[in-house]
Amino acid sequence: MTQLEYAKKGIITEEMRRVAADEKVTVEFIISKMAAGEIVITKNKNHSKVKPTGIGAGLKTKVNANIGSSQDVCDIKMELEKLELCVKHGADAVMDLSTGGDIREIRKKIVEASPVPIGTVPIYQTMVDIKRDGRGLKEMTGDDLFKTIEEHGEQGVDFITVHCGITKNTVNELLQQGRLLNIVSRGGSMHAAWILNNEKENPLFEQYDRLLDIAYKYDMTLSLGDGMRPGCLSDATDRAQIHELISLGALAKRAYDKNVQVMIEGPGHMPLNQIAMNMQIQKKLCNNAPFYVLGPLVTDIAPGYDHITAAIGGALAAASGADFLCYVTAAEHLKLPGAEEVKEGVIVSRIAAHAADIAKGIPGAIEWDNKMAEARKKLDWDAQIKLAINPERAKKMRESSRPAAEDVCTMCGELCAIKEMNTALQNRVLDNHKKK
Amino acid sequence: MTQLEYAKKGIITEEMRRVAADEKVTVEFIISKMAAGEIVITKNKNHSKVKPTGIGAGLKTKVNANIGSSQDVCDIKMELEKLELCVKHGADAVMDLSTGGDIREIRKKIVEASPVPIGTVPIYQTMVDIKRDGRGLKEMTGDDLFKTIEEHGEQGVDFITVHCGITKNTVNELLQQGRLLNIVSRGGSMHAAWILNNEKENPLFEQYDRLLDIAYKYDMTLSLGDGMRPGCLSDATDRAQIHELISLGALAKRAYDKNVQVMIEGPGHMPLNQIAMNMQIQKKLCNNAPFYVLGPLVTDIAPGYDHITAAIGGALAAASGADFLCYVTAAEHLKLPGAEEVKEGVIVSRIAAHAADIAKGIPGAIEWDNKMAEARKKLDWDAQIKLAINPERAKKMRESSRPAAEDVCTMCGELCAIKEMNTALQNRVLDNHKKK
Repeated sequence: MTQLEYAKKGIITEEMRRVAADEKVTVEFIISKMAAGEIVITKNKNHSKVKPTGIGAGLKTKVNANIGSSQDVCDIKMELEKLELCVKHGADAVMDLSTGGDIREIRKKIVEASPVPIGTVPIYQTMVDIKRDGRGLKEMTGDDLFKTIEEHGEQGVDFITVHCGITKNTVNELLQQGRLLNIVSRGGSMHAAWILNNEKENPLFEQYDRLLDIAYKYDMTLSLGDGMRPGCLSDATDRAQIHELISLGALAKRAYDKNVQVMIEGPGHMPLNQIAMNMQIQKKLCNNAPFYVLGPLVTDIAPGYDHITAAIGGALAAASGADFLCYVTAAEHLKLPGAEEVKEGVIVSRIAAHAADIAKGIPGAIEWDNKMAEARKKLDWDAQIKLAINPERAKKMRESSRPAAEDVCTMCGELCAIKEMNTALQNRVLDNHKKK
Repeated sequence: MTQLEYAKKGIITEEMRRVAADEKVTVEFIISKMAAGEIVITKNKNHSKVKPTGIGAGLKTKVNANIGSSQDVCDIKMELEKLELCVKHGADAVMDLSTGGDIREIRKKIVEASPVPIGTVPIYQTMVDIKRDGRGLKEMTGDDLFKTIEEHGEQGVDFITVHCGITKNTVNELLQQGRLLNIVSRGGSMHAAWILNNEKENPLFEQYDRLLDIAYKYDMTLSLGDGMRPGCLSDATDRAQIHELISLGALAKRAYDKNVQVMIEGPGHMPLNQIAMNMQIQKKLCNNAPFYVLGPLVTDIAPGYDHITAAIGGALAAASGADFLCYVTAAEHLKLPGAEEVKEGVIVSRIAAHAADIAKGIPGAIEWDNKMAEARKKLDWDAQIKLAINPERAKKMRESSRPAAEDVCTMCGELCAIKEMNTALQNRVLDNHKKK
């Protein structure tokens, strides 16, 4: 049985208890939201050591970090180092998107080493395998895809991105409408190109029940990919994107009915003023299934800073209902991220998620900020550094510029507003005391 | 006459023409919004070389960068270097907040060297002068303050922050209500401490007409400071903050009536879900005067990353009506920023402003993004780098990791989605052609 099936039957599992404890909510809340399809617990039955992680309504916004080799940059040691950095800096999940080197071996090592859920995009491996066989994309078969998916399930992958919504219909919608930047999703473009070349239907759509059977077997959560996600601001919220979202809603319902856990992926590049609306329409069309967004990036003009364009969009998206943020690194649009960019990407994405959690009133979120405010009022620098999301960085920065007086910083020195007010209010208390 | 006075009389000035051209709007739009008090042009009559800069409704969101020495770190060369970096990277205005060394000399050099408007907070200099005289804050007089303000006007400062809204009433509101972090505005804390120590009214409030006369004389824009801005998320949108805002609205009206250009300063630290509402209430209470915000910072727990917490809040604030963003650097809450932090602060704040301009539909904003999208579609890397907000950084990142094929990047290599779709669509066109 899957976690969803247990929830529907009212049976509380150990996984649900652990998620409830982590999230500071009742297990009754967890099971009722799971039974409604609004929370998933990503944990493959074969991934024994993984921490069961709840994603969805009323829970802390989760952060995913993408790692993995590419055809140009392939170093298994570096990928394991990235995994370690992701976990150390608080990523809730990691996707291994390797496309270079011995992909199976890299994934095996990552799944084994990871205490957090691991996601993949099986079509990447399928494509690499086909090319190594000397076949072209056009020759890919449904069997190729399902064979890879089964392998990922067997290996213990906790969630997979599957682009079931790229269909002949959505591709036609795209062609008729036109777009500045067509498709920027890798998996999406592979399926679309396959459909265009073969004039056939997407096997993941046509044989969706076969996919559901595999996912059910391993309790592998399906993450329905948004192959039509906009790749630039001007393509956002167009007919191709929403057409696909409608399909994803219907497919999510079919997964739910077959007791397969499911979440939906979302944009992408998007003007800030369209983000809240996109979160609402996704939740509505997909029966409130958990929403997993990449960005959204609120401008296209900042390569080198896309961890920040994504943090702006991600904070707003999560505050408007998104449950799971896929980080974007500073290297996006330029190169495969290195270890430092991965680390910073996780931290910045966690900042966005936390800001959203405060806005959503998630239990425990604002308490962290209140502790920082108290440390600031007391001019307690050790506490401020300990409470910082990245204490190493805060400490290094402060130490690089020491003030003459230990209780302030070199920005304001003795003109510190907090110190000024602490003194003024203390004097007032003393004055009032004397008057009495 | 001030620019506001000309606008009210329907006289188009050279400054208005230049602003209209820069903003790609008609001069009629500028003059009508100026006459309504919804746009200011910051340009002191004595600052001849400065570019007249429009701030307000319907215009590009502007970015201010704070520079200046502190008591712990004072290096005039470094401050001029910071100014140069600010201008190079697109800051629309710079505030010199120097509190260390020869403040007059630093300001003189900065005003002379700057092509963008310069702002100051005169009470900082007043405080430093008083301490050098051997007096305490309590001994400060109204004359001390007005003497400094006159000096700044004479020197060519284009806008000044004045904390006229810190009054006996607002301070009482603060004391009665209580706060986690009292006052974090430096100028605000000085005025509040002075009021508490002397049990007298704020001279800037009591002798407000004297302030207006000086501002009028130089056409120096008043930026009504928000001394009660929240210093942590839990203090946001409380009675003290809104009480002060009500006063600022009334004071803005008095300035407008006396033909003094005026804008309003705003928070601060603030949960994401309170930002839009704060922009609306400011615009309503202050007759749509331009709104100048510091941040808002959407979480307190990220010292070392406050350029990012501010970019998240700033983008949302500007999209919701704020006209002018004061940057925050990564050094905030830790130390006086150095040159690199200043530079990055400007760039990140410009990203936030630009994202907001797209959302607001500011003329010309989305075109930049569309050009980037076109360059990406063509896999034209030179164009992508040229169009990047920081071409140096984009170039360096790409060059640090070269792909085997020149037209892609090391993230996806030959699995590039854009390339895949370009090929698939080209094949389709060829197929269709053959069929015909």
